[in-house]
Amino acid sequence: MRNICMKVSYDGTKFNGFQAQPKDRTVQGEIERVLKILTKEDIVIHASGRTDAGVHARGQVFHFLTSSQIPVERFAIAMNTRLPEDVMILEAREMPLDFHARHSAKRKTYRYSIDNGKFPDLFGRHYRLHVPVPLNREAMRKALACLVGTHDFTSFTSTRSTKPHHVRTIYEAKLIEEGQFLHIELTGNGFTYNMVRIITGTLLKIGHGKIKPEQMRIILEGCDRSLAGPTAQAIGLILIDVSYS
Amino acid sequence: MRNICMKVSYDGTKFNGFQAQPKDRTVQGEIERVLKILTKEDIVIHASGRTDAGVHARGQVFHFLTSSQIPVERFAIAMNTRLPEDVMILEAREMPLDFHARHSAKRKTYRYSIDNGKFPDLFGRHYRLHVPVPLNREAMRKALACLVGTHDFTSFTSTRSTKPHHVRTIYEAKLIEEGQFLHIELTGNGFTYNMVRIITGTLLKIGHGKIKPEQMRIILEGCDRSLAGPTAQAIGLILIDVSYS
Repeated sequence: MRNICMKVSYDGTKFNGFQAQPKDRTVQGEIERVLKILTKEDIVIHASGRTDAGVHARGQVFHFLTSSQIPVERFAIAMNTRLPEDVMILEAREMPLDFHARHSAKRKTYRYSIDNGKFPDLFGRHYRLHVPVPLNREAMRKALACLVGTHDFTSFTSTRSTKPHHVRTIYEAKLIEEGQFLHIELTGNGFTYNMVRIITGTLLKIGHGKIKPEQMRIILEGCDRSLAGPTAQAIGLILIDVSYS
Repeated sequence: MRNICMKVSYDGTKFNGFQAQPKDRTVQGEIERVLKILTKEDIVIHASGRTDAGVHARGQVFHFLTSSQIPVERFAIAMNTRLPEDVMILEAREMPLDFHARHSAKRKTYRYSIDNGKFPDLFGRHYRLHVPVPLNREAMRKALACLVGTHDFTSFTSTRSTKPHHVRTIYEAKLIEEGQFLHIELTGNGFTYNMVRIITGTLLKIGHGKIKPEQMRIILEGCDRSLAGPTAQAIGLILIDVSYS
Protein backbone atom coordinates (compact mmCIF):
# COMPACT_ATOMS: atom_id res chain seq x y z
CA MET A 1 0.00 0.00 0.00
CA ARG A 2 1.23 3.53 -0.82
CA ASN A 3 0.19 6.83 0.73
CA ILE A 4 0.05 9.52 -1.97
CA CYS A 5 -0.17 13.18 -1.01
CA MET A 6 -1.22 15.81 -3.55
CA LYS A 7 -1.48 19.56 -3.69
CA VAL A 8 -4.51 20.82 -5.61
CA SER A 9 -5.75 24.20 -6.84
CA TYR A 10 -9.41 24.79 -7.65
CA ASP A 11 -11.77 27.53 -8.64
CA GLY A 12 -14.68 27.09 -6.24
CA THR A 13 -17.15 29.12 -8.33
CA LYS A 14 -18.95 26.15 -9.87
CA PHE A 15 -18.48 23.66 -7.03
CA ASN A 16 -20.79 22.93 -4.17
CA GLY A 17 -17.79 22.86 -1.86
CA PHE A 18 -14.97 20.39 -1.43
CA GLN A 19 -16.60 17.46 0.32
CA ALA A 20 -18.23 14.70 -1.75
CA GLN A 21 -22.02 14.69 -1.78
CA PRO A 22 -24.27 12.25 -3.58
CA LYS A 23 -25.89 14.69 -6.02
CA ASP A 24 -23.76 17.82 -6.15
CA ARG A 25 -20.65 18.70 -8.11
CA THR A 26 -17.80 18.78 -5.58
CA VAL A 27 -14.00 18.92 -5.79
CA GLN A 28 -13.63 15.64 -3.91
CA GLY A 29 -16.17 14.01 -6.22
CA GLU A 30 -14.23 15.06 -9.33
CA ILE A 31 -10.88 13.92 -7.91
CA GLU A 32 -12.20 10.54 -6.76
CA ARG A 33 -13.89 9.97 -10.12
CA VAL A 34 -10.57 10.50 -11.91
CA LEU A 35 -8.61 8.41 -9.40
CA LYS A 36 -11.01 5.54 -10.02
CA ILE A 37 -10.36 5.74 -13.78
CA LEU A 38 -6.58 5.73 -13.24
CA THR A 39 -6.27 3.14 -10.47
CA LYS A 40 -9.44 1.02 -10.93
CA GLU A 41 -9.85 1.36 -7.14
CA ASP A 42 -12.61 3.01 -5.11
CA ILE A 43 -10.37 5.61 -3.53
CA VAL A 44 -11.47 7.97 -0.78
CA ILE A 45 -9.32 11.08 -0.41
CA HIS A 46 -8.71 12.94 2.86
CA ALA A 47 -8.17 16.70 2.63
CA SER A 48 -6.53 19.08 5.11
CA GLY A 49 -10.07 20.36 5.69
CA ARG A 50 -13.22 21.09 3.74
CA THR A 51 -13.88 24.33 1.98
CA ASP A 52 -17.43 25.65 1.58
CA ALA A 53 -19.33 26.20 -1.64
CA GLY A 54 -17.74 29.03 -3.64
CA VAL A 55 -14.42 29.01 -1.72
CA HIS A 56 -11.26 28.64 -3.80
CA ALA A 57 -7.89 27.00 -3.19
CA ARG A 58 -4.38 27.54 -4.46
CA GLY A 59 -2.75 24.92 -2.28
CA GLN A 60 -5.26 22.50 -0.75
CA VAL A 61 -3.64 19.21 0.29
CA PHE A 62 -5.12 15.70 0.38
CA HIS A 63 -3.86 12.15 0.73
CA PHE A 64 -5.12 8.70 -0.18
CA LEU A 65 -4.05 5.09 0.07
CA THR A 66 -3.64 3.04 -3.08
CA SER A 67 -2.00 -0.14 -4.29
CA SER A 68 -1.60 1.37 -7.77
CA GLN A 69 1.96 1.46 -9.09
CA ILE A 70 1.60 4.67 -11.12
CA PRO A 71 4.92 6.56 -10.68
CA VAL A 72 4.37 9.59 -8.49
CA GLU A 73 5.84 11.99 -11.07
CA ARG A 74 3.26 10.85 -13.65
CA PHE A 75 0.24 11.04 -11.36
CA ALA A 76 -0.34 14.81 -11.56
CA ILE A 77 -0.23 14.96 -15.36
CA ALA A 78 -2.37 11.83 -15.77
CA MET A 79 -4.99 13.35 -13.48
CA ASN A 80 -4.90 16.83 -15.03
CA THR A 81 -5.66 15.51 -18.50
CA ARG A 82 -8.86 13.99 -17.07
CA LEU A 83 -9.90 16.66 -14.56
CA PRO A 84 -12.19 19.57 -15.53
CA GLU A 85 -10.60 22.96 -16.17
CA ASP A 86 -11.43 24.29 -12.68
CA VAL A 87 -9.38 21.71 -10.73
CA MET A 88 -5.65 21.17 -11.14
CA ILE A 89 -3.18 18.91 -9.36
CA LEU A 90 0.04 20.86 -8.73
CA GLU A 91 2.17 18.24 -7.03
CA ALA A 92 2.15 14.59 -6.02
CA ARG A 93 4.50 12.82 -3.66
CA GLU A 94 4.65 9.57 -1.77
CA MET A 95 4.52 9.91 2.00
CA PRO A 96 5.01 7.57 4.97
CA LEU A 97 1.86 5.58 5.74
CA ASP A 98 1.20 7.58 8.92
CA PHE A 99 0.98 10.91 7.09
CA HIS A 100 -2.54 12.37 7.23
CA ALA A 101 -3.42 15.56 5.32
CA ARG A 102 -5.60 16.85 8.17
CA HIS A 103 -3.96 15.47 11.31
CA SER A 104 -0.39 16.18 10.21
CA ALA A 105 -1.11 19.78 9.09
CA LYS A 106 0.83 22.37 11.08
CA ARG A 107 -0.19 25.70 9.54
CA LYS A 108 -2.78 26.96 7.13
CA THR A 109 -2.98 30.27 5.33
CA TYR A 110 -6.25 31.73 4.11
CA ARG A 111 -6.67 34.94 2.18
CA TYR A 112 -9.84 36.97 1.77
CA SER A 113 -9.65 39.38 -1.18
CA ILE A 114 -11.66 42.55 -1.56
CA ASP A 115 -11.90 44.75 -4.65
CA ASN A 116 -12.28 48.23 -3.20
CA GLY A 117 -12.38 50.04 -6.56
CA LYS A 118 -15.37 52.12 -7.58
CA PHE A 119 -15.63 49.70 -10.52
CA PRO A 120 -14.32 46.20 -9.85
CA ASP A 121 -11.67 44.50 -11.94
CA LEU A 122 -13.85 42.39 -14.22
CA PHE A 123 -11.21 39.66 -14.57
CA GLY A 124 -11.18 38.89 -10.85
CA ARG A 125 -14.94 39.08 -10.40
CA HIS A 126 -15.22 35.47 -9.19
CA TYR A 127 -12.29 35.77 -6.77
CA ARG A 128 -12.80 39.07 -4.92
CA LEU A 129 -15.67 40.66 -3.03
CA HIS A 130 -16.50 44.02 -4.55
CA VAL A 131 -16.89 46.81 -1.98
CA PRO A 132 -17.27 50.09 -3.90
CA VAL A 133 -17.19 52.40 -0.85
CA PRO A 134 -13.60 53.24 0.24
CA LEU A 135 -12.66 51.27 3.35
CA ASN A 136 -10.66 52.66 6.25
CA ARG A 137 -7.59 50.49 5.88
CA GLU A 138 -5.83 51.79 8.99
CA ALA A 139 -8.81 50.91 11.19
CA MET A 140 -8.97 47.42 9.68
CA ARG A 141 -5.24 46.88 10.21
CA LYS A 142 -5.48 47.98 13.82
CA ALA A 143 -8.38 45.60 14.48
CA LEU A 144 -6.61 42.67 12.83
CA ALA A 145 -3.59 42.92 15.12
CA CYS A 146 -5.45 41.73 18.23
CA LEU A 147 -6.23 38.37 16.63
CA VAL A 148 -2.59 37.21 16.70
CA GLY A 149 -1.93 34.67 19.44
CA THR A 150 -3.90 31.85 21.02
CA HIS A 151 -7.55 32.71 21.62
CA ASP A 152 -10.99 31.20 21.91
CA PHE A 153 -12.51 32.21 18.55
CA THR A 154 -16.13 31.39 19.41
CA SER A 155 -17.21 34.93 18.45
CA PHE A 156 -15.85 34.29 14.97
CA THR A 157 -17.26 30.78 14.59
CA SER A 158 -20.52 29.72 12.99
CA THR A 159 -23.08 28.56 15.55
CA ARG A 160 -23.36 25.43 13.38
CA SER A 161 -19.85 24.39 14.47
CA THR A 162 -19.72 20.88 15.94
CA LYS A 163 -16.19 21.22 17.36
CA PRO A 164 -15.65 20.70 21.12
CA HIS A 165 -13.82 24.03 21.46
CA HIS A 166 -12.73 26.98 19.31
CA VAL A 167 -9.29 27.72 20.67
CA ARG A 168 -6.88 28.32 17.80
CA THR A 169 -3.51 30.04 17.37
CA ILE A 170 -3.08 32.76 14.76
CA TYR A 171 0.58 33.28 13.82
CA GLU A 172 0.09 36.11 11.36
CA ALA A 173 -2.76 38.47 10.50
CA LYS A 174 -2.00 40.89 7.68
CA LEU A 175 -3.85 43.42 5.60
CA ILE A 176 -2.10 43.53 2.24
CA GLU A 177 -2.79 46.50 -0.04
CA GLU A 178 -2.38 46.02 -3.77
CA GLY A 179 -3.79 49.09 -5.52
CA GLN A 180 -7.56 48.89 -5.37
CA PHE A 181 -7.37 45.37 -3.91
CA LEU A 182 -7.19 44.50 -0.22
CA HIS A 183 -6.21 41.08 1.05
CA ILE A 184 -6.84 39.89 4.60
CA GLU A 185 -4.32 37.11 5.12
CA LEU A 186 -4.40 34.86 8.15
CA THR A 187 -1.98 32.09 9.06
CA GLY A 188 -2.81 29.80 11.95
CA ASN A 189 -2.64 26.27 13.29
CA GLY A 190 -6.27 25.81 12.28
CA PHE A 191 -9.48 27.67 11.62
CA THR A 192 -12.98 27.13 12.99
CA TYR A 193 -16.10 26.95 10.83
CA ASN A 194 -16.53 30.19 8.84
CA MET A 195 -13.81 31.86 10.96
CA VAL A 196 -12.09 33.83 8.15
CA ARG A 197 -15.42 34.91 6.67
CA ILE A 198 -16.78 36.15 10.01
CA ILE A 199 -13.51 37.96 10.79
CA THR A 200 -13.78 39.57 7.34
CA GLY A 201 -17.43 40.51 7.85
CA THR A 202 -16.46 42.19 11.12
CA LEU A 203 -13.47 43.97 9.53
CA LEU A 204 -15.74 45.27 6.78
CA LYS A 205 -17.97 46.88 9.42
CA ILE A 206 -14.82 48.41 10.94
CA GLY A 207 -13.65 49.56 7.51
CA HIS A 208 -17.03 51.21 6.98
CA GLY A 209 -16.76 52.98 10.34
CA LYS A 210 -19.75 51.14 11.82
CA ILE A 211 -17.68 49.45 14.53
CA LYS A 212 -14.61 51.03 16.15
CA PRO A 213 -11.35 49.09 15.74
CA GLU A 214 -10.95 48.89 19.53
CA GLN A 215 -14.15 46.81 19.61
CA MET A 216 -12.40 43.89 17.89
CA ARG A 217 -10.73 42.78 21.13
CA ILE A 218 -13.99 43.09 23.06
CA ILE A 219 -15.80 41.00 20.42
CA LEU A 220 -13.05 38.37 20.57
CA GLU A 221 -13.06 38.21 24.38
CA GLY A 222 -16.88 38.07 24.52
CA CYS A 223 -16.91 34.54 23.02
CA ASP A 224 -20.33 35.18 21.56
CA ARG A 225 -21.06 34.91 17.83
CA SER A 226 -23.75 37.58 18.02
CA LEU A 227 -21.14 40.24 18.90
CA ALA A 228 -19.28 39.89 15.60
CA GLY A 229 -20.22 41.08 12.11
CA PRO A 230 -21.94 39.00 9.44
CA THR A 231 -20.30 36.14 7.54
CA ALA A 232 -18.69 37.61 4.40
CA GLN A 233 -19.61 35.91 1.11
CA ALA A 234 -17.57 32.88 0.05
CA ILE A 235 -16.47 34.49 -3.23
CA GLY A 236 -13.39 36.30 -1.84
CA LEU A 237 -11.98 33.41 0.19
CA ILE A 238 -9.07 31.25 -0.89
CA LEU A 239 -7.07 28.58 0.90
CA ILE A 240 -3.54 29.63 0.00
CA ASP A 241 -1.38 27.00 1.61
CA VAL A 242 -1.19 24.13 4.08
CA SER A 243 2.16 23.33 5.59
CA TYR A 244 3.55 20.28 7.35
CA SER A 245 6.61 19.82 9.47
CA MET B 1 -28.07 65.51 -30.14
CA ARG B 2 -25.30 64.44 -27.74
CA ASN B 3 -22.15 62.44 -28.45
CA ILE B 4 -21.46 60.07 -25.53
CA CYS B 5 -18.10 58.33 -25.23
CA MET B 6 -17.64 55.32 -22.94
CA LYS B 7 -14.81 53.16 -21.74
CA VAL B 8 -15.72 49.49 -21.41
CA SER B 9 -14.05 46.37 -20.01
CA TYR B 10 -15.09 42.90 -21.09
CA ASP B 11 -14.14 39.29 -20.66
CA GLY B 12 -14.11 37.97 -24.22
CA THR B 13 -14.32 34.28 -23.21
CA LYS B 14 -18.03 33.87 -23.89
CA PHE B 15 -18.40 36.43 -26.69
CA ASN B 16 -18.17 35.88 -30.39
CA GLY B 17 -16.11 39.06 -30.67
CA PHE B 18 -17.00 42.71 -30.32
CA GLN B 19 -18.92 43.47 -33.48
CA ALA B 20 -22.68 42.90 -33.58
CA GLN B 21 -23.85 39.88 -35.55
CA PRO B 22 -27.40 38.75 -36.08
CA LYS B 23 -27.25 35.44 -34.22
CA ASP B 24 -24.16 35.50 -32.00
CA ARG B 25 -23.56 36.89 -28.55
CA THR B 26 -21.31 39.94 -29.04
CA VAL B 27 -20.18 42.82 -26.84
CA GLN B 28 -21.69 45.39 -29.19
CA GLY B 29 -24.98 43.47 -29.21
CA GLU B 30 -25.17 43.48 -25.41
CA ILE B 31 -24.34 47.19 -25.14
CA GLU B 32 -26.83 48.24 -27.84
CA ARG B 33 -29.54 46.08 -26.24
CA VAL B 34 -29.06 47.89 -22.91
CA LEU B 35 -28.84 51.34 -24.56
CA LYS B 36 -32.17 50.67 -26.23
CA ILE B 37 -33.78 49.89 -22.87
CA LEU B 38 -32.37 53.08 -21.31
CA THR B 39 -32.90 55.54 -24.17
CA LYS B 40 -35.78 53.94 -26.15
CA GLU B 41 -33.64 54.66 -29.24
CA ASP B 42 -32.10 52.27 -31.76
CA ILE B 43 -28.54 53.24 -31.01
CA VAL B 44 -25.53 52.05 -33.00
CA ILE B 45 -22.22 52.29 -31.16
CA HIS B 46 -18.83 52.88 -32.83
CA ALA B 47 -15.79 51.32 -31.17
CA SER B 48 -12.11 52.21 -31.50
CA GLY B 49 -11.84 48.93 -33.39
CA ARG B 50 -13.21 45.40 -33.28
CA THR B 51 -11.75 42.65 -31.18
CA ASP B 52 -11.98 39.03 -32.30
CA ALA B 53 -13.79 36.19 -30.56
CA GLY B 54 -12.12 35.39 -27.24
CA VAL B 55 -10.13 38.64 -27.05
CA HIS B 56 -10.57 40.69 -23.86
CA ALA B 57 -10.54 44.42 -23.11
CA ARG B 58 -9.71 46.53 -20.09
CA GLY B 59 -10.21 49.87 -21.80
CA GLN B 60 -12.07 49.58 -25.11
CA VAL B 61 -13.66 52.90 -26.14
CA PHE B 62 -16.85 53.53 -28.13
CA HIS B 63 -19.13 56.47 -28.86
CA PHE B 64 -22.74 56.92 -29.92
CA LEU B 65 -25.16 59.72 -30.70
CA THR B 66 -28.32 60.07 -28.66
CA SER B 67 -30.99 62.62 -27.86
CA SER B 68 -31.50 61.02 -24.43
CA GLN B 69 -31.06 63.42 -21.50
CA ILE B 70 -29.66 60.84 -19.04
CA PRO B 71 -26.93 62.65 -17.05
CA VAL B 72 -23.54 61.36 -18.09
CA GLU B 73 -22.53 60.48 -14.51
CA ARG B 74 -25.56 58.18 -14.20
CA PHE B 75 -25.10 56.42 -17.52
CA ALA B 76 -22.38 53.97 -16.46
CA ILE B 77 -24.21 52.76 -13.37
CA ALA B 78 -27.56 52.52 -15.16
CA MET B 79 -25.94 50.38 -17.84
CA ASN B 80 -23.95 48.18 -15.47
CA THR B 81 -27.05 47.13 -13.55
CA ARG B 82 -28.47 45.81 -16.85
CA LEU B 83 -25.34 44.43 -18.51
CA PRO B 84 -24.22 40.82 -18.01
CA GLU B 85 -21.36 40.15 -15.58
CA ASP B 86 -18.74 39.93 -18.33
CA VAL B 87 -19.16 43.50 -19.63
CA MET B 88 -18.67 46.62 -17.53
CA ILE B 89 -18.79 50.32 -18.39
CA LEU B 90 -15.95 52.09 -16.57
CA GLU B 91 -16.50 55.66 -17.62
CA ALA B 92 -18.91 57.85 -19.61
CA ARG B 93 -18.37 61.40 -20.82
CA GLU B 94 -19.94 63.78 -23.26
CA MET B 95 -17.73 64.72 -26.21
CA PRO B 96 -17.88 67.26 -29.05
CA LEU B 97 -20.01 66.02 -31.94
CA ASP B 98 -16.96 65.49 -34.15
CA PHE B 99 -15.34 63.01 -31.75
CA HIS B 100 -15.14 59.52 -33.23
CA ALA B 101 -13.86 56.57 -31.17
CA ARG B 102 -12.01 55.10 -34.15
CA HIS B 103 -10.96 58.11 -36.22
CA SER B 104 -9.89 60.23 -33.25
CA ALA B 105 -7.83 57.46 -31.57
CA LYS B 106 -4.12 58.32 -31.31
CA ARG B 107 -2.61 55.31 -29.55
CA LYS B 108 -3.64 51.82 -28.58
CA THR B 109 -2.00 49.39 -26.21
CA TYR B 110 -2.46 45.65 -26.50
CA ARG B 111 -1.04 43.05 -24.16
CA TYR B 112 -0.58 39.35 -24.84
CA SER B 113 -0.15 37.32 -21.64
CA ILE B 114 1.58 33.97 -21.38
CA ASP B 115 1.64 31.68 -18.36
CA ASN B 116 5.07 30.06 -18.57
CA GLY B 117 4.70 28.00 -15.39
CA LYS B 118 4.94 24.21 -15.49
CA PHE B 119 1.40 24.30 -14.08
CA PRO B 120 -0.67 27.35 -15.06
CA ASP B 121 -2.32 29.65 -12.57
CA LEU B 122 -5.84 28.25 -12.57
CA PHE B 123 -7.41 31.63 -11.79
CA GLY B 124 -6.07 33.25 -14.95
CA ARG B 125 -6.80 30.29 -17.23
CA HIS B 126 -9.12 32.31 -19.48
CA TYR B 127 -6.73 35.27 -19.77
CA ARG B 128 -3.30 33.77 -20.43
CA LEU B 129 -1.91 31.28 -22.91
CA HIS B 130 -0.26 28.40 -21.06
CA VAL B 131 3.19 27.50 -22.41
CA PRO B 132 4.69 24.91 -20.04
CA VAL B 133 8.16 24.77 -21.67
CA PRO B 134 10.46 27.55 -20.37
CA LEU B 135 10.80 30.32 -22.97
CA ASN B 136 14.03 32.14 -23.76
CA ARG B 137 13.04 35.58 -22.58
CA GLU B 138 16.21 37.31 -23.70
CA ALA B 139 15.78 36.09 -27.27
CA MET B 140 12.14 37.26 -27.28
CA ARG B 141 13.12 40.68 -25.94
CA LYS B 142 15.83 41.08 -28.56
CA ALA B 143 13.38 40.20 -31.35
CA LEU B 144 10.71 42.59 -30.06
CA ALA B 145 13.02 45.60 -30.22
CA CYS B 146 13.15 45.71 -34.04
CA LEU B 147 9.39 46.30 -34.25
CA VAL B 148 9.60 49.81 -32.77
CA GLY B 149 9.21 52.53 -35.40
CA THR B 150 7.19 52.91 -38.58
CA HIS B 151 7.10 49.75 -40.69
CA ASP B 152 5.01 47.87 -43.20
CA PHE B 153 3.61 45.06 -41.01
CA THR B 154 2.32 42.87 -43.85
CA SER B 155 4.32 39.89 -42.51
CA PHE B 156 2.39 40.18 -39.26
CA THR B 157 -1.03 40.72 -40.84
CA SER B 158 -3.70 38.15 -41.60
CA THR B 159 -4.06 37.53 -45.32
CA ARG B 160 -7.77 38.21 -44.75
CA SER B 161 -6.97 41.91 -44.13
CA THR B 162 -8.98 44.28 -46.34
CA LYS B 163 -6.90 47.36 -45.52
CA PRO B 164 -5.17 49.26 -48.37
CA HIS B 165 -1.81 49.12 -46.61
CA HIS B 166 -0.24 47.79 -43.39
CA VAL B 167 2.10 50.61 -42.43
CA ARG B 168 1.80 51.29 -38.71
CA THR B 169 3.96 52.97 -36.06
CA ILE B 170 4.89 51.08 -32.90
CA TYR B 171 5.92 53.42 -30.08
CA GLU B 172 6.73 50.79 -27.49
CA ALA B 173 7.31 47.04 -27.56
CA LYS B 174 7.99 45.50 -24.16
CA LEU B 175 8.36 42.07 -22.67
CA ILE B 176 7.21 42.33 -19.06
CA GLU B 177 8.19 39.53 -16.67
CA GLU B 178 5.97 38.90 -13.66
CA GLY B 179 7.08 35.66 -12.02
CA GLN B 180 5.87 32.80 -14.20
CA PHE B 181 3.88 35.21 -16.37
CA LEU B 182 5.17 36.99 -19.47
CA HIS B 183 3.39 39.91 -21.07
CA ILE B 184 4.12 41.16 -24.58
CA GLU B 185 2.93 44.75 -24.55
CA LEU B 186 2.71 46.82 -27.71
CA THR B 187 1.70 50.46 -28.05
CA GLY B 188 1.14 51.92 -31.50
CA ASN B 189 -0.92 54.27 -33.61
CA GLY B 190 -2.91 51.29 -34.84
CA PHE B 191 -2.73 47.56 -35.41
CA THR B 192 -3.50 45.49 -38.50
CA TYR B 193 -5.70 42.41 -38.48
CA ASN B 194 -4.28 39.76 -36.09
CA MET B 195 -1.04 41.75 -35.80
CA VAL B 196 -0.42 41.21 -32.06
CA ARG B 197 -1.34 37.55 -32.27
CA ILE B 198 0.99 36.90 -35.25
CA ILE B 199 3.83 38.82 -33.57
CA THR B 200 3.23 36.68 -30.46
CA GLY B 201 3.14 33.45 -32.48
CA THR B 202 6.49 34.42 -34.00
CA LEU B 203 7.98 35.39 -30.63
CA LEU B 204 6.90 32.03 -29.21
CA LYS B 205 8.90 30.28 -31.95
CA ILE B 206 11.86 32.48 -31.01
CA GLY B 207 11.32 31.73 -27.31
CA HIS B 208 11.36 28.04 -28.13
CA GLY B 209 14.61 28.43 -30.08
CA LYS B 210 13.01 27.45 -33.40
CA ILE B 211 13.70 30.84 -35.00
CA LYS B 212 16.75 33.01 -34.19
CA PRO B 213 15.94 36.46 -32.77
CA GLU B 214 17.89 38.10 -35.61
CA GLN B 215 15.30 36.64 -38.01
CA MET B 216 12.62 38.97 -36.70
CA ARG B 217 13.91 41.90 -38.73
CA ILE B 218 14.21 39.76 -41.85
CA ILE B 219 10.62 38.54 -41.38
CA LEU B 220 9.43 42.13 -40.92
CA GLU B 221 11.28 43.42 -43.97
CA GLY B 222 10.09 40.52 -46.12
CA CYS B 223 6.50 41.81 -46.09
CA ASP B 224 5.20 38.26 -46.51
CA ARG B 225 2.82 36.64 -44.03
CA SER B 226 4.24 33.18 -44.73
CA LEU B 227 7.60 34.18 -43.23
CA ALA B 228 6.16 34.78 -39.74
CA GLY B 229 4.99 32.31 -37.11
CA PRO B 230 1.42 31.13 -36.56
CA THR B 231 -1.36 33.30 -35.12
CA ALA B 232 -1.34 32.81 -31.34
CA GLN B 233 -4.70 31.89 -29.75
CA ALA B 234 -7.06 34.72 -28.84
CA ILE B 235 -7.16 33.73 -25.14
CA GLY B 236 -4.08 35.71 -24.06
CA LEU B 237 -4.90 38.95 -25.86
CA ILE B 238 -6.30 42.03 -24.16
CA LEU B 239 -6.89 45.57 -25.40
CA ILE B 240 -5.48 47.56 -22.51
CA ASP B 241 -6.07 51.15 -23.47
CA VAL B 242 -7.01 53.56 -26.26
CA SER B 243 -5.85 57.14 -25.96
CA TYR B 244 -6.94 60.36 -27.62
CA SER B 245 -5.27 63.72 -27.85
